[in-house]
Amino acid sequence: MPNDTTQLDATQTPTADAAIEAPESKDAPDSVGIVTPVSYHFDEPLLLRSGKTLLAYDLMVETYGELNAARSNAILICHALSGDHHAAGYHSATDSKPGWWDSAIGPGKAIDTTKFFVVALNNLGGCAGSTGPTSINPDTGKPYGPDFPVVTVRDWVKSQLQLMDRLAIKKWAAVVGGSLGGMQVQRWAISYPDRVANAVCIASAPKLSAQNIAFNEVARYSITSDPNFHAGRYLEHNTYPKQGLMLARMVGHITYLSDSAMRAKFGNAGSQLENTTRGNLGRDLRSGTLSFGLNVDFEVESYLHYQGERFSSNFDANTPIF
Amino acid sequence: MPNDTTQLDATQTPTADAAIEAPESKDAPDSVGIVTPVSYHFDEPLLLRSGKTLLAYDLMVETYGELNAARSNAILICHALSGDHHAAGYHSATDSKPGWWDSAIGPGKAIDTTKFFVVALNNLGGCAGSTGPTSINPDTGKPYGPDFPVVTVRDWVKSQLQLMDRLAIKKWAAVVGGSLGGMQVQRWAISYPDRVANAVCIASAPKLSAQNIAFNEVARYSITSDPNFHAGRYLEHNTYPKQGLMLARMVGHITYLSDSAMRAKFGNAGSQLENTTRGNLGRDLRSGTLSFGLNVDFEVESYLHYQGERFSSNFDANTPIF
Repeated sequence: MPNDTTQLDATQTPTADAAIEAPESKDAPDSVGIVTPVSYHFDEPLLLRSGKTLLAYDLMVETYGELNAARSNAILICHALSGDHHAAGYHSATDSKPGWWDSAIGPGKAIDTTKFFVVALNNLGGCAGSTGPTSINPDTGKPYGPDFPVVTVRDWVKSQLQLMDRLAIKKWAAVVGGSLGGMQVQRWAISYPDRVANAVCIASAPKLSAQNIAFNEVARYSITSDPNFHAGRYLEHNTYPKQGLMLARMVGHITYLSDSAMRAKFGNAGSQLENTTRGNLGRDLRSGTLSFGLNVDFEVESYLHYQGERFSSNFDANTPIF
Repeated sequence: MPNDTTQLDATQTPTADAAIEAPESKDAPDSVGIVTPVSYHFDEPLLLRSGKTLLAYDLMVETYGELNAARSNAILICHALSGDHHAAGYHSATDSKPGWWDSAIGPGKAIDTTKFFVVALNNLGGCAGSTGPTSINPDTGKPYGPDFPVVTVRDWVKSQLQLMDRLAIKKWAAVVGGSLGGMQVQRWAISYPDRVANAVCIASAPKLSAQNIAFNEVARYSITSDPNFHAGRYLEHNTYPKQGLMLARMVGHITYLSDSAMRAKFGNAGSQLENTTRGNLGRDLRSGTLSFGLNVDFEVESYLHYQGERFSSNFDANTPIF
């Protein structure tokens, strides 16, 4: 069920995945160390792009580094589709994995916390502490579920602006984000150019193309067609659309890696049976043989199952993405 | 349920799909007209790559054109993942759609039936008449279901060789196929080079890369994780994994079109809201507005649903693909 940690399940064997996300020491000089998220409450109604209004809401936030006296060194981190506020460091000494962008955020790292005050939030509608479908709807006393309004990039940036004002920051030294996070960066630069000194937009686009839309629709439909989804009221039915979430994540993961990155990641066994001398195809086998059945034979298949399993244990199915 | 026609459901609104597949007149001079499939029975046991043996089997076949006296003008058509023997023409006067490659096969067409004898079969394991999971297992008197052995490209080509010998053809004038059909063409050229005069391999590859494997695994897992799949014994449970098949087909359809083809197909409304002046993104909307909900907004989404719905009404879920 939704929670704001992404613990590595010790019973699962992370194969290629571990090579990328090897846990650092919490005492490492380039780690932000133990961090504590803070919730900010907002009573100012937020008019959403859909025409609906959110009367009040909370944003879960983590910060790293120190705000300078001029309040000019703040960097906003905008997360992507399934991200959260926990961008760096560890929540406790027993956490096996740091925040999702720990590789980029910390003392001496690309986003240097000895120089900058880094602000990471869980976007509105997220399931990691900010108001969203799992939050209690004040009108009903029950979780919003599918009644939580669909929110858009513009809505997220409007709420981030509220947070900015709450922190009394006049201008971001930079707004940084990748993918859907990069779309938020673009919206900041378009709508509030005087509030942003630098826009760092990574692996993103102004608009999705048909192919993007198609992938998203398959992922969305995987979730909504899961019989355990119950039109978003799975909590009331005491079910959880785990299979749908798993399929959605598997589809997503194919899009997170380029074809060549996939070949490099899954083509290390050097098997002459499955990889060719003319090029690495990424065809590493789990056991060296083919099963001629429905079992997982290839490492890339195992990776997808692992990622799907991990995601579907943690993420709320109603978390709306427009 | 599986059948060997692909009728256009009059209740569905084929949008962009209709532009490509407009039915020809059955009397058109370049149509093969009404055709009748024929089933060939084989008693010679077929040793499969998995190590299993198929003691006997049937292949459903359609032919177009006339075999010449020298038996030298025969062309073999190898279908791809979900294809069948009905490659051209119509089964009856009331068919609204011709065979899947009617645009290429016929009098005066690219594969000219005034010159060539064209042989199209449903590959072993298919659900359109050749022996496969829906066929009765002689050992049990019930459909094979998941007990039907996994078959491979090599197995298909071995069975096609049996058909070739049955038709007393010494050498194919050409073996033609796209995608998985192209893999069969390659196998013909590698394993039986003296039996093939020309190998026409279209949009194919010698081996799948990791990304290919990944897409296939998502499609396969969509089907096998559908609660109605019942480990392949859905017929016994009187269920049908329609949602899983639908998701699998939606994923597949994204891979059947290139990014640029998708943009061209779904970016015709010229809406300045959704397509940019710098390039067509394929963002045509169904109704011109966004619904801010889970409804289908974009034409490409509608297309995927339509294709998924069409496929999942017709195709057997056990039809094994290695």
